[in-house]
Amino acid sequence: MTVKITIDCMGGDHGPAVTVPAAVNFVRSHPDAHLLLVGIEPAIRAQLKKSKAVDEPRLTVVPASEVVAMDDPVEVALRRKKDSSMRVALNLVKEGEAQTCISAGNTGALMAVSRYVLKTLAGIERPAIAFAMPSQRGYTTVLDLGANVDCEPQHLLQFAEMGHALVSAIEGRERPTIGLLNIGEEVIKGNETIKRAGELLRASTLNFYGNVEGNDIYKGTTDVVVCDGFVGNVALKTSEGLAKMLTDMIKEEFGRSFATKLMALVAMPVLKRFKRRVDPAQYNGAALLGLRGLVIKSHGSAEAYGFEWAIKRGYDAVKNGVLERLVRAMDENAAPMRQAALEAGRANGITGSDAVQPLQDGVAASRTNPPPPGEPGAALPSKA
Amino acid sequence: MTVKITIDCMGGDHGPAVTVPAAVNFVRSHPDAHLLLVGIEPAIRAQLKKSKAVDEPRLTVVPASEVVAMDDPVEVALRRKKDSSMRVALNLVKEGEAQTCISAGNTGALMAVSRYVLKTLAGIERPAIAFAMPSQRGYTTVLDLGANVDCEPQHLLQFAEMGHALVSAIEGRERPTIGLLNIGEEVIKGNETIKRAGELLRASTLNFYGNVEGNDIYKGTTDVVVCDGFVGNVALKTSEGLAKMLTDMIKEEFGRSFATKLMALVAMPVLKRFKRRVDPAQYNGAALLGLRGLVIKSHGSAEAYGFEWAIKRGYDAVKNGVLERLVRAMDENAAPMRQAALEAGRANGITGSDAVQPLQDGVAASRTNPPPPGEPGAALPSKA
Repeated sequence: MTVKITIDCMGGDHGPAVTVPAAVNFVRSHPDAHLLLVGIEPAIRAQLKKSKAVDEPRLTVVPASEVVAMDDPVEVALRRKKDSSMRVALNLVKEGEAQTCISAGNTGALMAVSRYVLKTLAGIERPAIAFAMPSQRGYTTVLDLGANVDCEPQHLLQFAEMGHALVSAIEGRERPTIGLLNIGEEVIKGNETIKRAGELLRASTLNFYGNVEGNDIYKGTTDVVVCDGFVGNVALKTSEGLAKMLTDMIKEEFGRSFATKLMALVAMPVLKRFKRRVDPAQYNGAALLGLRGLVIKSHGSAEAYGFEWAIKRGYDAVKNGVLERLVRAMDENAAPMRQAALEAGRANGITGSDAVQPLQDGVAASRTNPPPPGEPGAALPSKA
Repeated sequence: MTVKITIDCMGGDHGPAVTVPAAVNFVRSHPDAHLLLVGIEPAIRAQLKKSKAVDEPRLTVVPASEVVAMDDPVEVALRRKKDSSMRVALNLVKEGEAQTCISAGNTGALMAVSRYVLKTLAGIERPAIAFAMPSQRGYTTVLDLGANVDCEPQHLLQFAEMGHALVSAIEGRERPTIGLLNIGEEVIKGNETIKRAGELLRASTLNFYGNVEGNDIYKGTTDVVVCDGFVGNVALKTSEGLAKMLTDMIKEEFGRSFATKLMALVAMPVLKRFKRRVDPAQYNGAALLGLRGLVIKSHGSAEAYGFEWAIKRGYDAVKNGVLERLVRAMDENAAPMRQAALEAGRANGITGSDAVQPLQDGVAASRTNPPPPGEPGAALPSKA
């Protein structure tokens, strides 16, 4: 099976100068991949020429006349730039021309346009950004990492459902464990939202471990860690800052004098291995979950090597049938989970805006016309 | 001048087995320090004997018959255990018998008992936990790290005022820069609370830099970073987890084979320097700010070496007159800052619970009877 991937070539801080060479490298090392390069045609062709890949049959250029800038407000991306590389790339996924879209564009715009073009899955009110962070026991999938700054308890429950589906699809675990990010036992345990989310999770059929703390992400205490997008984003960015400071400190210590430089030379094989393990470039590519299509967000500042990793994540997700499994899991589990959650909410006197809400808007629309679960391409309806 | 410090010897995971040896070591290396060891007398004396310090004249045992357990609810610590080592130690500060109190006890209980015994400073509704985190440019003082899970905009403004006073006292900077922890430019910039806090900060006389992100803590973009206790606690714990994973990885890489162990031997001087710089033990001791007395919270799991660092932080704070300066700064700045904030709030239509509130409870009480600013021991009134 050919894996068809659309690349929003204009996204990110560097645009085609990064996205095109990454696509060329990727397609050369993956014989079953076909990449659709979306964006300003001359800019893309110039980069293809530079990379000596003008005649590569598995790279197709798809013209788009507009570019979503990194600082464009969501409304501009959504309502004014209807022929942006981002929008055209996502449309290709919607129309079934590709199975995933990779973009390094502005997160807010990417989330909004994805949601508009692809719609959300049944039972999901808000898509989330998920990422597998390295841990002492493998990986911890954390969501949300910044799509939703204010979350209600039921949104955290939905993130848990999505995290469950993602990890069971990719890592093949039957019942991945779910942790709710909270603060230490010794302090008042979290705010009202967190406490209520805990009640919903306990009442669900998920394998809920309980509260976890920030350090549990790296300990690997649970397979999935759920949090609101504000907290998740701070945890992620803080980690990036600390990792950079520590690796810079190692460099600094080894660069201090002639003697220490000699030591670095001797220890080079070990230092290289370490550097490879912590290299942030390979931890690039977060999944936008909860949509009726697979979208991977790359870091805006990624270089070609890092962007290639983001393409790889989309490719792996397609190969593992992540979307189909997500759709199936949501369809199978959504009803009993929501029922349990609803009852828990009632039993605990959760009402009003905190109660489990009836489905709305795009969700409701997609519910009235659900794709046949399990069928290939089921989640990519030609009309939404 | 003798620096008098009370130690809650029963606090923490290890109690006197850690706190007493740390106190002994500290007093031996600080000839102007006098430590009051509070707790179950026989337990403390047994440890003093073990440390061969029974006759040390600058270590005084102060008996207390009860112990606040690490999992005691706040109410138990506050209302039932009135002769706890924590409470007695804090009372000594209140009565002017000591200038600071060090405890590794349960954070929630320590905060509640401190607040009850010492009261808050004029203009401060909620005390916060502050810590100087290492950065690429020195230190970044971050608050709150877990005392307040739900904050209103004016609380974040008060944290900024306290951070300003602390950093200007300890680091001697006239106008330290203040950052408001937020999420990336490219996503919707924060929730309503953060946006309003930003407005209050802009309207204040503080040196407000603007929004910062998680990685700015380690970059050292600003001198102070302000956030609510939930987010701050997650950032701190996540950092601890990542630092542990990375240092474990270095160990693992160097321990992989005979050859790599040889390399480690060669690189030992550098690795040792690095280890010393990142050693978490030395980053122990957070200040409870906003109280009419100096309280330092040690990690519950700290070993003797780490606990000694917490004592050192209390000692340094006393030497630098942190409390007196905080009192003075709050008295001088509180009125114009709050006025400006109030006006900003009005101009932006902030009303109800989000508006700058009239002072309440302990704050109001302490306001009616402010200590003469600048006088030694001014902030340690014998009656509150």
